[in-house]
Amino acid sequence: MSLLLVAQHRDMEPFKKAIQQIDPNIDVDIWPDVDIPERVQFAVAWNHPKNVFTRFPNLKVISSLGAGVDHLTYDDTIPSNIRFSRVVIPSLAEQMSDYLLTSVLNIIRNTEYYLEQQKQGIWTKKKPLDKADLTVGIMGLGELGCAAALRLQNNGFRVSGWSVTKKNFEGIDTYTSAELKAFLNHTNILINLLPLTPETEGILDLDLFKNLKKPTYIINAGRGEHLIDEDLIYALDTNLIEQAVLDVFRNEPLPDSHPFWGRKKITITPHVASITDPAEVAELLVDNYKRSLSGLELRFEVKSEKGY
Amino acid sequence: MSLLLVAQHRDMEPFKKAIQQIDPNIDVDIWPDVDIPERVQFAVAWNHPKNVFTRFPNLKVISSLGAGVDHLTYDDTIPSNIRFSRVVIPSLAEQMSDYLLTSVLNIIRNTEYYLEQQKQGIWTKKKPLDKADLTVGIMGLGELGCAAALRLQNNGFRVSGWSVTKKNFEGIDTYTSAELKAFLNHTNILINLLPLTPETEGILDLDLFKNLKKPTYIINAGRGEHLIDEDLIYALDTNLIEQAVLDVFRNEPLPDSHPFWGRKKITITPHVASITDPAEVAELLVDNYKRSLSGLELRFEVKSEKGY
Repeated sequence: MSLLLVAQHRDMEPFKKAIQQIDPNIDVDIWPDVDIPERVQFAVAWNHPKNVFTRFPNLKVISSLGAGVDHLTYDDTIPSNIRFSRVVIPSLAEQMSDYLLTSVLNIIRNTEYYLEQQKQGIWTKKKPLDKADLTVGIMGLGELGCAAALRLQNNGFRVSGWSVTKKNFEGIDTYTSAELKAFLNHTNILINLLPLTPETEGILDLDLFKNLKKPTYIINAGRGEHLIDEDLIYALDTNLIEQAVLDVFRNEPLPDSHPFWGRKKITITPHVASITDPAEVAELLVDNYKRSLSGLELRFEVKSEKGY
Repeated sequence: MSLLLVAQHRDMEPFKKAIQQIDPNIDVDIWPDVDIPERVQFAVAWNHPKNVFTRFPNLKVISSLGAGVDHLTYDDTIPSNIRFSRVVIPSLAEQMSDYLLTSVLNIIRNTEYYLEQQKQGIWTKKKPLDKADLTVGIMGLGELGCAAALRLQNNGFRVSGWSVTKKNFEGIDTYTSAELKAFLNHTNILINLLPLTPETEGILDLDLFKNLKKPTYIINAGRGEHLIDEDLIYALDTNLIEQAVLDVFRNEPLPDSHPFWGRKKITITPHVASITDPAEVAELLVDNYKRSLSGLELRFEVKSEKGY
């Protein structure tokens, strides 16, 4: 049997190396170089090409390389008997919290304004935004969302959260499905960390933006498909939103011709908010591979109908 | 009697307004418009012109507008019988911690790299620096330094501190005067928050830079006079230092012709790390003004020979 690594625009060699460092006897293929397709039992996928998984008749399990599995649940070419698992490691939540805190601090401290000023040799002070006047609202309170909420709170921010199932945190106002409008009405800095499901696809649209509190900022670290790109551009152009920080896009890498690139009010990072470290994840992948061989339940198996 | 506000490159009207909101009976002059110089008993100073305080024969007290009083202790035209006080308010430490955390996070998360990439429409990931591989070293452990050390530590950074008098913190290695070299040898990101004294002037020089651990980053939020400008440029050009973040300068505003402006490896902010809010500081200024009238001891009076 073998373990297959499938990804586009990502070097998978370090993952092969980390897996074989734990167990040199595991055969690891890196797509598209697969010796014997019939031997593939377990795949690890990131941004995989559609239809790729139809070629392995004995494939039993696909593990995502991150916290999200929507790229798997959304791919209807994957046979329905295949089980999914996802990756939960401490550093993913830590990195995401760092990314979001960095983004929020840069908004309130005018970082991009000062970098632009420096280029022009200008010395002008701009009043920072006062934390006391702002609420950061997080959509999605899974591992990453919870960690981010606590981290922002520990750094002096007023934080609220919205999730499909009600969550409780000390000091954080939490809202559930039907209370979306109330949540938005007092949120200035909206952070999206939702899983991608049919219900959440396209949720970041003009209607939602209109319900946010001014001044308004958007940070999308969920999925590109959560956002209606045209609505964001319209909202920025009409000053409904001051600034958007985007780490995820409908097509990645973001195409050269995409209007997001040239916009001052958009900050682009190339899907780097939280990156799975090969050495840190290898133990989990090896364990789940061996579990799949012996038919055991997987760690972090995705069972929910909700797609996460 | 009257209270005088003295500053260059700073609008002092909001301070006058905030003081008179607390006590409308206090006469407040804003330099250079002083009705009767003989009536000036108490002055509040920020970046004052030299010799200005020789014109007020009944001046008893000068309060700094921030945590530092070096601009007062260094001005030998100020008569020696004048007492000094400084401003200690919670938001100064909170703002400074935010500034330093923002700067450190931007270093490890490659913020400027991604902003430059976006301008060129380039999508390339760059590995963030790992907190586990870095130590942030803070020089100066007064109110601001202590708050910053704890905040960085709470955000997952390994932090050490150096101060003239030994300080103790849980989880933070602290060093004192004679241990400077040991402190520098394991510091990657050096934060300067020292008070400016004859002993600390010019402390950030090539010799100090050479003792820091690689990769090396410098953040100066102390005073411009702590830094030997030419040594920094040489250290950046020879890759001794990767990046410098500077909020303070020998001359402020930083002159147009200064070589710092055009350098990619230098990030300039216009002395905004921590800004005194008029409404927040007014109560302290009014109280100290009244104490000075009745000869009471001042709050946060500067008594030390050390200049802080």
